[in-house]
Amino acid sequence: MASIQTSFRVTYSDTDQMGFMHHSNYFKYYETARWELFRNIGIPYSELEEEGIILPVTEASMKFIKPVLFDQTVTVKTSVKLFKGARIVFEYKAYNEAGENINVASVTVACVGKKTGKACFPPKKLTNTLKELL
Amino acid sequence: MASIQTSFRVTYSDTDQMGFMHHSNYFKYYETARWELFRNIGIPYSELEEEGIILPVTEASMKFIKPVLFDQTVTVKTSVKLFKGARIVFEYKAYNEAGENINVASVTVACVGKKTGKACFPPKKLTNTLKELL
Amino acid sequence: MASIQTSFRVTYSDTDQMGFMHHSNYFKYYETARWELFRNIGIPYSELEEEGIILPVTEASMKFIKPVLFDQTVTVKTSVKLFKGARIVFEYKAYNEAGENINVASVTVACVGKKTGKACFPPKKLTNTLKELL
Amino acid sequence: MASIQTSFRVTYSDTDQMGFMHHSNYFKYYETARWELFRNIGIPYSELEEEGIILPVTEASMKFIKPVLFDQTVTVKTSVKLFKGARIVFEYKAYNEAGENINVASVTVACVGKKTGKACFPPKKLTNTLKELL
Repeated sequence: MASIQTSFRVTYSDTDQMGFMHHSNYFKYYETARWELFRNIGIPYSELEEEGIILPVTEASMKFIKPVLFDQTVTVKTSVKLFKGARIVFEYKAYNEAGENINVASVTVACVGKKTGKACFPPKKLTNTLKELL
Repeated sequence: MASIQTSFRVTYSDTDQMGFMHHSNYFKYYETARWELFRNIGIPYSELEEEGIILPVTEASMKFIKPVLFDQTVTVKTSVKLFKGARIVFEYKAYNEAGENINVASVTVACVGKKTGKACFPPKKLTNTLKELL
Repeated sequence: MASIQTSFRVTYSDTDQMGFMHHSNYFKYYETARWELFRNIGIPYSELEEEGIILPVTEASMKFIKPVLFDQTVTVKTSVKLFKGARIVFEYKAYNEAGENINVASVTVACVGKKTGKACFPPKKLTNTLKELL
Repeated sequence: MASIQTSFRVTYSDTDQMGFMHHSNYFKYYETARWELFRNIGIPYSELEEEGIILPVTEASMKFIKPVLFDQTVTVKTSVKLFKGARIVFEYKAYNEAGENINVASVTVACVGKKTGKACFPPKKLTNTLKELL
């Protein structure tokens, strides 16, 4: 299974007045992590968009186990869980500096033609590369 | 069941280069909608925080049915689905200007003592008001 | 001078751990206020983009006089200060619920052709309408 | 003069439908850059907050020279320009991958007591360290 480990440091603007990173930011960092995975297998997402393919999110869910604070570093393990028809399902596990699992998530994207606005099969170079890694 | 209808207009900064509202923003608007529900039943969230209670998100999921674009108005129907122990589960349905259901979501928050950092029962005024509305 | 008054309520995700609205959010609300001014004079910004004109920000400055907190309502007075060549300069004054001026700002945008990427004169319907209001 | 060089990669959620990084994000990255400078001189901003000092922004201005796109890396040169009374002025220059200066900015922060809400002199360890670097 194609997987990758990335990390980010919680910025001040990520926090809210509870003193935690605001939950909506996880989806921003998870997005960055999945394009990092794509870059890693040699297919940058920006290249796909130039070829007329967009990958909008169709489902997203997460479970918060522990909060994370300003300046702390979070490590994200991203993997491709499922690859079927137009859909790709990514799974995420986030860890704090103590190695504790603080967040788990699943995000589904769909391959959509930029012009048609319709679901399509992902480009072969993407499916082939991901299959090799399964 | 306590429920409320609110609306928002997609801002320019909400969009991404796909030309859609970025998916992470839904969770920001859903948060605003649930505190609007609380304000509506006479218990503003800011009042709860002043009393030492915070309500961090513990689970969040959504399904995107249709994208929404800059300047479009989205109507959100928010309801309290479940109220058990320290947890409150909110359900959301978002509609575009044509009345189509474009997004559904569920967000769980936990009552936590600001100082203790531990789960606690929600204040009686909140449980009583919400029960009356069930 | 074309001017307009709009308002917004500080959302929870707007705050940071200082307990204030994060300063970067002012520029998001000021952007929304200027497109509200355009809508008000009958020329929605989305219409300009459809016609191939974008108005990216070229200069932005602000002075913070007082912080603003979660749930507080901010009133924004937006006016077109200058209109010259490709540039439009907007001025902003923000007030809290007590009527105190809490923030002042200036934002310059340039008319740019979406395809050419080059500065251009604003469409006549926009200049004419704004001149009438000077 | 204390100065530091940091960099960031434009994320997808940073972009707007113009296809550029939204201008408000510069202030988020500049904030991260100034706390990186503080960490670099051995005084993490989080430590200052723990000691009861906050550094809210009181003035901010920037000039956009060139837009920056998704996935591009931006290099930021941050320096402390002025250090007087309660105020610290930071200057920023941002460069794209081609080494072109794409953005310049100035941000002023004030030392404020977390409890008093009043302006105060910065802690000596901060002033001393910064003076050595002038």
